[in-house]
Amino acid sequence: MTNNKFPSISIVGATGAVGKVCLDILAERNYPFEKIKLFASKRSIGKRISYKGNDLIVNEANKSSFDGSDVVFISADSQVSLDLAPAAVNSGALVIDDGSAFRMKENVPLVVPEVNEEDINSHEGIISIPNCTTTPLVMALSHLRKISNIKRIQASTYQAVSGSGSLAVSELKNQTENILNNEKISKSVYPHQIAFSLIPQVDDFLEDGYTKEEHKMVNETRKIMHDNNLNISVTCVRVPIFYCHSESVSVDFEDDIDIQEIVNLFSNADGIKLINDGKNENYPTPSMVEGKDDIFIGRIRKDLGSSRGVNFWLVSDNLRKGAALNAVQIMESAIKLGKIPNFVG
Amino acid sequence: MTNNKFPSISIVGATGAVGKVCLDILAERNYPFEKIKLFASKRSIGKRISYKGNDLIVNEANKSSFDGSDVVFISADSQVSLDLAPAAVNSGALVIDDGSAFRMKENVPLVVPEVNEEDINSHEGIISIPNCTTTPLVMALSHLRKISNIKRIQASTYQAVSGSGSLAVSELKNQTENILNNEKISKSVYPHQIAFSLIPQVDDFLEDGYTKEEHKMVNETRKIMHDNNLNISVTCVRVPIFYCHSESVSVDFEDDIDIQEIVNLFSNADGIKLINDGKNENYPTPSMVEGKDDIFIGRIRKDLGSSRGVNFWLVSDNLRKGAALNAVQIMESAIKLGKIPNFVG
Repeated sequence: MTNNKFPSISIVGATGAVGKVCLDILAERNYPFEKIKLFASKRSIGKRISYKGNDLIVNEANKSSFDGSDVVFISADSQVSLDLAPAAVNSGALVIDDGSAFRMKENVPLVVPEVNEEDINSHEGIISIPNCTTTPLVMALSHLRKISNIKRIQASTYQAVSGSGSLAVSELKNQTENILNNEKISKSVYPHQIAFSLIPQVDDFLEDGYTKEEHKMVNETRKIMHDNNLNISVTCVRVPIFYCHSESVSVDFEDDIDIQEIVNLFSNADGIKLINDGKNENYPTPSMVEGKDDIFIGRIRKDLGSSRGVNFWLVSDNLRKGAALNAVQIMESAIKLGKIPNFVG
Repeated sequence: MTNNKFPSISIVGATGAVGKVCLDILAERNYPFEKIKLFASKRSIGKRISYKGNDLIVNEANKSSFDGSDVVFISADSQVSLDLAPAAVNSGALVIDDGSAFRMKENVPLVVPEVNEEDINSHEGIISIPNCTTTPLVMALSHLRKISNIKRIQASTYQAVSGSGSLAVSELKNQTENILNNEKISKSVYPHQIAFSLIPQVDDFLEDGYTKEEHKMVNETRKIMHDNNLNISVTCVRVPIFYCHSESVSVDFEDDIDIQEIVNLFSNADGIKLINDGKNENYPTPSMVEGKDDIFIGRIRKDLGSSRGVNFWLVSDNLRKGAALNAVQIMESAIKLGKIPNFVG
């Protein structure tokens, strides 16, 4: 690729957990540093971030920051997305937003390229990426529905603290050290102790007893699968690990299923890696999936109570396929489809 | 209670994780030290364990160790139970066994006193206590089935390492310190890293892709509920916490359900404590349940996909109600029912 094959990128939230991984992924693709501009909140202004031997300097974003950018990645608070995305779109950029602000808007495609790349064609300036628990789930479901109609999905998650940002990573580390040293712990990110404990709450609670995170998984899955009646219920739980979200998933089908057919489908699926050999104690774990691009599936087995049900275990790096990698892949799909407004390539 | 109201107890596995908690529970009940004999494996012989100001000395058990004991608690490898339980029964004792060796035997009651205390009446010398994930689940289910027939149960567990014994507690602690210090970890209890990771395997795998632990939960629940056709499927996962097992549970009923009715039932149930106020971020977590006798339930809500389904979150101390406390309660029920062969009280 010559240099002018690379669209100019702005990254808003460059110093955050997802922003950092986004830069790693661009570096793996040999993205030229002069095509990248970094933005973050006030306290990071002037910070230098080393990128392939060069220093990129962090600026504060304002509404005229994006002139000349073809693509603007935003991974920050929803309010930042709401403030900056319209300006970026006005300046002609394609916004790829990691937050929940636009995901359910009708004119905003919500995209996992392996599942619904064609939805990119209908964007009006903003494309959202799904919640980090939704992305791996829909990657699995999009294959499973080839087997038979899906009647019902139930999932329980095991989510890493990095999904709450860098401060949560520090909170788990500090609390862990405190407990090992018999010291008092302090809390700021989470309402309860996370080290050596669990928190069955991700995001705020709604009136129906579910959390926003649980509703995100449900609603986003329906949107991406283009099936507003998809029967799905989830429980989201924060676990004391740094990276990778795991999910225990049960899917019921309209017809009897053949487990080997499911194994074969997943084996040949883009972006999915199978580790499905329980007898030899081989299955995906967060510590082995950390830093990997693929989502990992194992423990595929028939439900003990239903010949039409399958249970499986899913692990993916929440900062890579769950966030930054999916965002970069959307950009690459948009290039391929000619859907970056100001960029011919 | 006068001293002769206390049956004489032998504890086999006294130096293990469950054995230690068993002594704590007996101390809370002011059990007299002269009624307690301790046994463990060879390497612990002669060890002194302080109990209410007295030193109890650990011996190695053999087939004549239990003469004079009214009750023998066994919490050790299944082979130890198989070797020693028949001798204890022959010497006239009631064996209360924490392992899986006898649980599914037809002439061995499997008991959670709050659920099926009356099954104690039919014992022939051995009573088993259920697996530490089964006990809290059946405590919840025994109330739920009053609402409507149960059609299906699905559960995903979040199990503490103490369920694998004291060595696993050390392994989590050591690996955690290693990782925080950027050192290499070592593994002996678990086949994969447990610190800051998850292991979707508890006990060995069987041919059908499930683990023994998962089959235990299924089969034991059916036995305790006296319903061999109960439709239940589970996924068991080890998480990097020391104490307390948690479960994300979904139950489908034959009829539409009223969540408030379920809340009311649990509120008035023996041995169950509700923390069910998500709006104020109140729900049970392992760090708050550790050391507690009750099982804790929260996050009770209607399934998003079924008006006949309920989802909830369950936490219990795996060493107390999940093991030692349940064993002591079985003894107390057996005293009440007059079912300790050599003990009149």
